[in-house]
Amino acid sequence: MFRLFWADDGGLPANDRGLAYGDGLFETIRMSGQKGVLLSRHLERMARDAGRLGIEVSRKELASVCVEAGQRFADRFKGDGWVLKLTLTRGSGGRGYRPDPGMEPNLLVSASALPPTPDSDGVAVDFSKVTLAVNPLLAGVKSLNRMEQVLAAAELKPSLFEVIMADREGNLVEGTRTNILLRQADGWVTPPASSLAVAGVLRQWLLERLRQRGEPVTERPVTVPDVLGPDCQGMFLLNSVLGIVPVLTIAGHHLPVDSGLATIFNPLETLE
Amino acid sequence: MFRLFWADDGGLPANDRGLAYGDGLFETIRMSGQKGVLLSRHLERMARDAGRLGIEVSRKELASVCVEAGQRFADRFKGDGWVLKLTLTRGSGGRGYRPDPGMEPNLLVSASALPPTPDSDGVAVDFSKVTLAVNPLLAGVKSLNRMEQVLAAAELKPSLFEVIMADREGNLVEGTRTNILLRQADGWVTPPASSLAVAGVLRQWLLERLRQRGEPVTERPVTVPDVLGPDCQGMFLLNSVLGIVPVLTIAGHHLPVDSGLATIFNPLETLE
Repeated sequence: MFRLFWADDGGLPANDRGLAYGDGLFETIRMSGQKGVLLSRHLERMARDAGRLGIEVSRKELASVCVEAGQRFADRFKGDGWVLKLTLTRGSGGRGYRPDPGMEPNLLVSASALPPTPDSDGVAVDFSKVTLAVNPLLAGVKSLNRMEQVLAAAELKPSLFEVIMADREGNLVEGTRTNILLRQADGWVTPPASSLAVAGVLRQWLLERLRQRGEPVTERPVTVPDVLGPDCQGMFLLNSVLGIVPVLTIAGHHLPVDSGLATIFNPLETLE
Repeated sequence: MFRLFWADDGGLPANDRGLAYGDGLFETIRMSGQKGVLLSRHLERMARDAGRLGIEVSRKELASVCVEAGQRFADRFKGDGWVLKLTLTRGSGGRGYRPDPGMEPNLLVSASALPPTPDSDGVAVDFSKVTLAVNPLLAGVKSLNRMEQVLAAAELKPSLFEVIMADREGNLVEGTRTNILLRQADGWVTPPASSLAVAGVLRQWLLERLRQRGEPVTERPVTVPDVLGPDCQGMFLLNSVLGIVPVLTIAGHHLPVDSGLATIFNPLETLE
């Protein structure tokens, strides 16, 4: 179990380990009224990745909080979509970095308005100057250690929707808040989960759907030439709050835009 | 300037970016009454590294808070030493990862008892299974992104004082809360600042003192054979709260212990 905090009632204790060390993880869930888009996947990821960090929480307990959050917050957004954020930390205290065994986690629940809807005709992105250094122990985990994403997001000019970060080998990994998916002549390509800072739930959902439809999907390192070269038939950014967003230009280079993918799978509200 | 929060009055706002993303940094300062050990170096590091992250704060403002903290907390520890912690975050809010320009930072100030004094005859350490993945943009910065240290500290059995982490090339970098210094036949060796997760103030102070005394100090990658091989004449762990701590055994392997270094430079309370 966890100790529950509502953000509209106040913050976490001063000695919370999420603040002290980024010792925790979070989910941002698109809500439609009291219903969460891809909710079960979000909760599955949080419970599983919390376990990887040694934080004990069950999906069922989280689901119950989401029901309560829907009742508490949905009316404030007058039937529009909103965003539910769950921040789960290892708890309060401990001896320095060392966690005490059996600490009670803290769960902070907050609500916010939806971000602006991305242009469905496609967005402009650039390459980030920030290199990702993903620790294999944390690969894919939406932990509270997000300084690299903050530094990269500081590069976002108003004209840019996203910047794409590479690892130190120069392979493109992901945006600050999006996973990437390329359309190539012989199928779909996306970086492998083991290389990702955050393995998004929309990415996982979409890969499964594409495979169910018999479309070839390859998880392999993605290079700059993969994106800028002639084989690229389109690039998509994936985020469970924002949806499937086609890229129109990257670093000023125009990419083919095929709206098929977005049309097939949106609106987001229908996703389970 | 910053918004000041005293931990004994409560925590930070629920939307603080330190909690959300580890978007900030911290200092832990050994206090002797109202006097901070190596205080000016701590404040210099915090102001400088905050600047690297785009968080504006002056050393003078921080110094003034430390005076106030000394007056507030020193009596509670009845003349004994204590630990002053400053946690500086980019502030509250922002649009997702992207910081708003001109955000007002939050500064949380807390006090705690000194940790147990390490055995001056030497301590037992081990190699950590956690590999450090240091982003060059964050090298040396005592940021709030400390999940690697938390995971490594979870390996600490009661018999161990520290575990030493290597980078993915296998070079030894540092402990969870200590920098490392080796004594070799031809002088002192320590990993270069550019490779460090946290560049400690005691490390910097000690390297300067050793050089002033004319002793050769080399900053270069440190390998496991450097530590376990015949050239190793001693290994020391450096932490500005705990001091200069000799290592007696590493992974069960006995190291030579020369208490000279600790004797010369302690007691910590005298350090400016």
